[in-house]
Amino acid sequence: MTNKTKKRIAIFGSTGSIGTQALDVIAANPELFSAEVLTAMTNDALLIKQALAFQPAIVVIGDEKKYPIVKEALSGTDTQVYCGEKALQEVASMDVYDMMLAAIVGYAGLKPTLMAIEAGKAIALANKETLVVAGDIIIRKAMEFRVPIIPVDSEHSAIFQCLVGEGRNKIEKIILTASGGPFLGRKPNFLMNVKREHALQHPNWSMGAKITIDSATLMNKGLEVIEARWLFNLKPEQIQVVIHPQSIIHSMVQFEDGSIKAQMGLPDMKLPIQYAMAFPQRIPNTFPRYNFKQPNTLQFDEPDLKTFRNLALALEAMKQGGNMPCILNAANEIAVYAFLKNRIGFLDMTDVVEKTMQNVAHIAEPTLEDYFETDGEARTFADSLIQMY
Amino acid sequence: MTNKTKKRIAIFGSTGSIGTQALDVIAANPELFSAEVLTAMTNDALLIKQALAFQPAIVVIGDEKKYPIVKEALSGTDTQVYCGEKALQEVASMDVYDMMLAAIVGYAGLKPTLMAIEAGKAIALANKETLVVAGDIIIRKAMEFRVPIIPVDSEHSAIFQCLVGEGRNKIEKIILTASGGPFLGRKPNFLMNVKREHALQHPNWSMGAKITIDSATLMNKGLEVIEARWLFNLKPEQIQVVIHPQSIIHSMVQFEDGSIKAQMGLPDMKLPIQYAMAFPQRIPNTFPRYNFKQPNTLQFDEPDLKTFRNLALALEAMKQGGNMPCILNAANEIAVYAFLKNRIGFLDMTDVVEKTMQNVAHIAEPTLEDYFETDGEARTFADSLIQMY
Repeated sequence: MTNKTKKRIAIFGSTGSIGTQALDVIAANPELFSAEVLTAMTNDALLIKQALAFQPAIVVIGDEKKYPIVKEALSGTDTQVYCGEKALQEVASMDVYDMMLAAIVGYAGLKPTLMAIEAGKAIALANKETLVVAGDIIIRKAMEFRVPIIPVDSEHSAIFQCLVGEGRNKIEKIILTASGGPFLGRKPNFLMNVKREHALQHPNWSMGAKITIDSATLMNKGLEVIEARWLFNLKPEQIQVVIHPQSIIHSMVQFEDGSIKAQMGLPDMKLPIQYAMAFPQRIPNTFPRYNFKQPNTLQFDEPDLKTFRNLALALEAMKQGGNMPCILNAANEIAVYAFLKNRIGFLDMTDVVEKTMQNVAHIAEPTLEDYFETDGEARTFADSLIQMY
Repeated sequence: MTNKTKKRIAIFGSTGSIGTQALDVIAANPELFSAEVLTAMTNDALLIKQALAFQPAIVVIGDEKKYPIVKEALSGTDTQVYCGEKALQEVASMDVYDMMLAAIVGYAGLKPTLMAIEAGKAIALANKETLVVAGDIIIRKAMEFRVPIIPVDSEHSAIFQCLVGEGRNKIEKIILTASGGPFLGRKPNFLMNVKREHALQHPNWSMGAKITIDSATLMNKGLEVIEARWLFNLKPEQIQVVIHPQSIIHSMVQFEDGSIKAQMGLPDMKLPIQYAMAFPQRIPNTFPRYNFKQPNTLQFDEPDLKTFRNLALALEAMKQGGNMPCILNAANEIAVYAFLKNRIGFLDMTDVVEKTMQNVAHIAEPTLEDYFETDGEARTFADSLIQMY
């Protein structure tokens, strides 16, 4: 690697869980990476701290009210400061970086990622909603602009790792593992009383708030199934979800000859982050290793689709296709934030998603504009439902 | 694949467990493979039957007394018939095949494999003793003649499958799984009374007699560790043996970034056989699949080196290096066949191996001739020990 120039990374969503861990990876490997773009929605204090430490070419603060604070704090540096949603898209097109780590949470990550693809940037994709909402268009664009999309989600990274070197060998199915979240084995009469604080305690993974709630409802696994469908060009029936409470096997691929490949390790998001950033190279590190020395057990079971109906809804949305996953995702984002604000209960989230899916018009072959409109429509409808709780 | 010519396979050891399963694979994929050489030590009846079915260019019967029977039976065909140990080596050099499936059991497989490598033939290696006895020389020769050695042992096939596409990414360690055999959890006071019939009942794998006994004593795992060392260019301390009674994970690779890749499936030797024959292509098949649908569990534990001392002896032989693995292997072959003939007890096998290792002279950097001499010497010594039982 000594003769190679550094890979210039743009972290879209640098103050979140993925973003901060990505900066740890960059800090640990200064000969491989530099952070050239950092963006945050609202956390100006952390963004400023990161910019002072990593001296990126550009920072973007989404919240325009905070622009003066960031501008002032970085006035003595070479870092340019932008603000607002439009700036995110503009910066995504600029020739100041090589790879975008797309780590903005939710639908908001879609447009900048699309701009990056059209600018020919490699994508390390941590934002699953981008593919859930508009997977067909994103994948078509990536092929058109010859842009690699390397997944950062631990499950999809696992599958990606299992596929390297397999050439044209066909996938029979993929097996997405799910920890089951903090409420594995629980039934609806328990779930109806679950509170925010309880749902935010994930047994294995340390993640942001949105994804932690999605893990507790199994919606996260549903979104991952849809993401996997697009990333790996699969039919819905080629994707199996298996509950694996230990989160050691991150996911598996079964090939046409029946052979299964799995990628395993302790649950630590830094590994897939660094893998996506350095692919095809693996970076030596001293992260703790999974240890087979003492007796240990890996368990597998079917998911309980009757209790965790979000997963069933996501599978249904995938089968219906078109803009239905976009509707599912929009309604879910609204529902999760309402739950996080204690406005609706745990099981209400599923009802909001289901009713929104039933009421927003299905479009079989949507354009990008259709997706944008569907997203808005679904959010408005979901919001109106929440007003009634 | 339609425009490709068939791969011409030579099965050395066609009447054994691996050989017959390889012929099943060829029969199921006549557009991909033809069987051009079949060899057997003593089983003339099956060799004749196979030759009539597959019409190879050449068959070799090791046992010269049986030559007239085979010759007579195939007199109406185009198949040429040879006999004797020398013929095995001569045929291995002939330009009638592309890939040798080296499936002769034990030390006897070494010389033909060496001839095949020197003739530039690809090797599907089912004979682990070849690498155990003279791994340094075999690997050096394979590199010199640019010959791929693709392992057929399920564990080494698993590791090989995990390594495809990883380029220069370094192996931190490999984790060889072991079922533990039929006597997992037993202690010496039980093992001392174990009989041939009992030891031949492997819980998961259907294999030949020699390897089934080696699995019961864990010597098989010891030989595999040594084999892996040469196949994957590892230091002894980079190889970990883990007991995994279900035999679903066939083995694993841990890379420098801590990521572990595993290859899994139901225990079925046809899969690694066909993988080695068709590599880099995987052949679709309808072999039964491992199923995650019902609750299931994979367990892991450390091996009991105090009870299963053969594994400890193999690890010790690997560390000492030179001709010590050759001594270990020769003594073990003599001991296993003595046990199969009810001449010595189950635990006596270990004593024979240990005493032979202590008494045959260690050579740090043996030549090929040294290996041949060591093998003879160790067999003679082990035989003499067995006379005393």
